Amino acid sequence: MKIIRTIDEMKSICFSHKSQNKKIGMVPTMGFLHEGHESLIKNARDNNDIVVVSVFVNPSQFGPDEDYDNYPRDLQRDSEICRKLGVDYVFHPDAKEMYPEGYSTFVVPSERMTNILCGVTRPGHFRGVCTILTKLFNIVAPDNAYFGKKDIQQLAIVKRMVKDFNFGINIIGCPIIREEDGLAKSSRNSYLSEKERKSATVLRKSILKGIDIVKEGERKSKAIRDIICETIEAEETARIDYVEILDFDTFDRVEEVSKNTLIAIAVYIGNTRLIDNEIVSI
Amino acid sequence: MKIIRTIDEMKSICFSHKSQNKKIGMVPTMGFLHEGHESLIKNARDNNDIVVVSVFVNPSQFGPDEDYDNYPRDLQRDSEICRKLGVDYVFHPDAKEMYPEGYSTFVVPSERMTNILCGVTRPGHFRGVCTILTKLFNIVAPDNAYFGKKDIQQLAIVKRMVKDFNFGINIIGCPIIREEDGLAKSSRNSYLSEKERKSATVLRKSILKGIDIVKEGERKSKAIRDIICETIEAEETARIDYVEILDFDTFDRVEEVSKNTLIAIAVYIGNTRLIDNEIVSI
Repeated sequence: MKIIRTIDEMKSICFSHKSQNKKIGMVPTMGFLHEGHESLIKNARDNNDIVVVSVFVNPSQFGPDEDYDNYPRDLQRDSEICRKLGVDYVFHPDAKEMYPEGYSTFVVPSERMTNILCGVTRPGHFRGVCTILTKLFNIVAPDNAYFGKKDIQQLAIVKRMVKDFNFGINIIGCPIIREEDGLAKSSRNSYLSEKERKSATVLRKSILKGIDIVKEGERKSKAIRDIICETIEAEETARIDYVEILDFDTFDRVEEVSKNTLIAIAVYIGNTRLIDNEIVSI
Repeated sequence: MKIIRTIDEMKSICFSHKSQNKKIGMVPTMGFLHEGHESLIKNARDNNDIVVVSVFVNPSQFGPDEDYDNYPRDLQRDSEICRKLGVDYVFHPDAKEMYPEGYSTFVVPSERMTNILCGVTRPGHFRGVCTILTKLFNIVAPDNAYFGKKDIQQLAIVKRMVKDFNFGINIIGCPIIREEDGLAKSSRNSYLSEKERKSATVLRKSILKGIDIVKEGERKSKAIRDIICETIEAEETARIDYVEILDFDTFDRVEEVSKNTLIAIAVYIGNTRLIDNEIVSI
């Protein structure tokens, strides 16, 4: 496994593999890899000739008050995980090379898909995500790119972008990987104190309670939303950012759950903002 | 020569040529080809194995009050010109396939480079240009793409985008092609009445007057600008949109001409808006 630190080298390596008709699978990450990433990497490894994992904490997707500087970083550990999983290349470019002086072109994703859920409190976040992905896709030219369903809004927006921009890339969404107690794996979980870590189980728990009443026959979004909110609010360190029930295809709020209904939540546990979701189909 | 009407067919043709290591040269156009385009096509033909000319009147770069519906179109004539010049493929997709229902991702180019010159009166224009080019570049994957220096702001913005997004494409700027009386070739010249056609020479004439006083030793932008404006205003059917003197690298207005100074003008002749420019270096 090789760590590649410059755009030109990564480009020429990928170009050379492509010209030999090798299939390239890419897993774009901000590093601090956990089992969620590992499952993406395994999926990529199983279905491609060459696997590239990018490890890049992308400044353009952090807001001014967000945790860019403190976002956890550990390239050595990440590289070791990638090596063990049979990754061919870790792409770890410098932020100054990715966004040099004078950098000024951005991708603005679907307004309808960004003015809801995480887009509300994180203006510009998905613009940063789409911009860095456009760059990474142009550098690596993957056949397949792997994203976790935990960031379900990101997955939907990226799929839309790839379709709209005619990128020849399959975007593959992979299942959420959870801790034994149900908490979705996230690099940000490392911020949690022991007490907060226990509280954090409320995200999954609250969604399951919502799904329970759906199974019992409830269809009204309001009732489902209420039980989710009550469950979260009962947890001392938890503060709701949003609890939304949407049509997954249109991202419009729905009055009743039906086919492809997305339940998505964001909750602050102490100062750490965590997300979770589930798609329900009746 | 083949006319290709679907994205998938164009993609697979280009992919097949690329996999045989053929160099692809692309000339993106909105059709109604004139000698300006022809010079781009010849340049592409001389320096590539395969030449693709796209003919697509791009709705996303027209403002609501602009001339999208009436923009001149003549595919048969365009195809004939392309055939004679040895073009391999004319790509002529349907607007509905390029912008299907639900289309919602856009490229927003450099603010500094778009809030001046044509960007002032045509908000969203360069966003549309960059968006369609991102799509076309992903479909055709050219090695080289050719643009006229007449649309100098477009050329600069596209170069910036290609650099920022790490497209592996050389953007090649080609000289302005002029009528015998100096008028820069443009598809929009076809809108001009006989009388307006005569007035339209004032664009080139005014810039040359500005350059004359630079040659005589004048350095102050104000003096140069004044003589250009006076010359245009003396022409009955002409109305100034802008006369700007900028640093070509930064797009900042300058007090004095020096190295790489851009003189750029836009003038309404009757209802038709024409542009011209010259880069001056001292």
